[in-house]
Amino acid sequence: MSEPVVVDAMGGDHGPVETVAGAVAARRELGIPVLLVGRAGDVRAELDRHGAAAEIDVVHAEDVVPMAERGAGAVSSVSSGSSGSSGKTSLTVGCELVRRGAASAFVSAGSTGAVVSCAIRGIGRATGVLRPALAIALPSVTGGATVLIDAGATSDPTPEMIAQFALLGVSYAQLVLDVADPSVGLLSIGSEPGKGNRLTRRAGELLPDLPLRFHGNVEGHDVLAGTVDVIVTDGFTGNVVLKNVEGSVRAALTLVARSGVAGAEDLREVARRYDPETHGGAALLGLSGTVVVAHGSSRAATIARACAVAHDLAEGGVATRFGDRLATEPVR
Amino acid sequence: MSEPVVVDAMGGDHGPVETVAGAVAARRELGIPVLLVGRAGDVRAELDRHGAAAEIDVVHAEDVVPMAERGAGAVSSVSSGSSGSSGKTSLTVGCELVRRGAASAFVSAGSTGAVVSCAIRGIGRATGVLRPALAIALPSVTGGATVLIDAGATSDPTPEMIAQFALLGVSYAQLVLDVADPSVGLLSIGSEPGKGNRLTRRAGELLPDLPLRFHGNVEGHDVLAGTVDVIVTDGFTGNVVLKNVEGSVRAALTLVARSGVAGAEDLREVARRYDPETHGGAALLGLSGTVVVAHGSSRAATIARACAVAHDLAEGGVATRFGDRLATEPVR
Repeated sequence: MSEPVVVDAMGGDHGPVETVAGAVAARRELGIPVLLVGRAGDVRAELDRHGAAAEIDVVHAEDVVPMAERGAGAVSSVSSGSSGSSGKTSLTVGCELVRRGAASAFVSAGSTGAVVSCAIRGIGRATGVLRPALAIALPSVTGGATVLIDAGATSDPTPEMIAQFALLGVSYAQLVLDVADPSVGLLSIGSEPGKGNRLTRRAGELLPDLPLRFHGNVEGHDVLAGTVDVIVTDGFTGNVVLKNVEGSVRAALTLVARSGVAGAEDLREVARRYDPETHGGAALLGLSGTVVVAHGSSRAATIARACAVAHDLAEGGVATRFGDRLATEPVR
Repeated sequence: MSEPVVVDAMGGDHGPVETVAGAVAARRELGIPVLLVGRAGDVRAELDRHGAAAEIDVVHAEDVVPMAERGAGAVSSVSSGSSGSSGKTSLTVGCELVRRGAASAFVSAGSTGAVVSCAIRGIGRATGVLRPALAIALPSVTGGATVLIDAGATSDPTPEMIAQFALLGVSYAQLVLDVADPSVGLLSIGSEPGKGNRLTRRAGELLPDLPLRFHGNVEGHDVLAGTVDVIVTDGFTGNVVLKNVEGSVRAALTLVARSGVAGAEDLREVARRYDPETHGGAALLGLSGTVVVAHGSSRAATIARACAVAHDLAEGGVATRFGDRLATEPVR
């Protein structure tokens, strides 16, 4: 039995109400062992409302990340509020629990930048990993999902880092999406190997030599098409694409609603599929422990889904699996 | 009165039938002087079907770009077909006409890579321009359009080239979209100036000093939102985004149709707005003459629209205007 998933009770727009409710749902409905980290008084009050105080432990963290810093991505271990204490934030404590092995994974709905910085500092990279990457599973029109990696952790990777992102993405697809032998496409601007910018062409030279099923180049229109199981790119392009998918789908649905051929309510289900809230979170891969960042506006069900993703990744030993691949097929 | 727009009769999936019909429409319905370039026999036969042989001149070009090369973006001035001649293609001849001043602009539905290479070689860059860029106007949900530049001509620009792309994009918005003082956003992954990859951060340092209305950073979800009039980025990111917009809109509409809340026909109007066919073409800016690349599947109406865009740009002296801006505010 693995260590519990620790949930940041204070992160996001709706902590601790929705984060605690999500942790309770993960425990009761999905059978996932969970811990909560945050201001113990507030958290326990919420647990009591679910009658769950006896089921879920709470680790106290004095401070929350100040509102002004949440958007900017900085993490302060000292509250900039009136308490003036030098306590640690729920982010810091959550990552420490993972590093110490007291938790198998950390789930937070805090700002992606803040969580990623804190996790890199607090947990550290797995052996052999050059840089971590964010993986997000996007629903494809064929009914499955496509893993987009790096969706925004590492903006200026080297070709070698992109090669590692591909291996991490394959692990995600195997552990979370249950795809036995995921195909991998390199996001570029033409199908021929010579196409793309310098970084992409060089990454394209490394990928065929890796222990994965390399499809070749894919283009921007393949992101939701189900062409491959994993699409690998640098963190800048990945994040632009992720936001562009969300915005384009929203724009298309707005125009459909406006044209009157379908009502806004009818479109809600389609909108929901691509709503950042329902992704199941962005998994930060490549660290010595598993971290999943849920969207800031996440409600309980999304928090619970993020716990499930974190649990699958931790149970599957994503960091270890990657290390094994590195040992057999070293990336130059 | 300016020189005519020369239309490549042989380019695209439906040349010369639709290209000739489009040229005729541009002449008769939009009052734009046009020329056609291609295999004179075939072209004149099409013109006769419209009774337009007396209205539109034809410049002969022996060869067409071989089918095998159209996708790969290479241009051959020697036919790889059975004729074995050493004649020039309609692309080459069309660009020569512009270079010589016998035509003010060139419109082709040939492959973007082939047209761009040919134009750069055959027409050459305007004074002061470091690299050309493709500009595409995407409809925004607010009812206007946003110019995306560079949509795929220059994959690895320097920050200085990106600064120039911004100036070219502003000219496009003024001349084609009639926006008097276009706002410009730099595509990045966060609104704060420090966000983004190295290239974007450096470009962000140059843009505030240019004679344009700089909004600051925009993100992937701003592309169709109408946040700014011009979105500037490198050609790799721009092309990924362009294809991603098309694919994401298509995916959203597919899901809506599949959900049964609206019929495929009802969705057609929405799909049409974002159909690459209706963009009005991609304008290659920064050369000594105007070139507009229409989508390969373009029908007559789209070819005519591309002629209108080419005409507006040529009449407005987009290359000259840019040179003036460079003279007053040199880009470092």
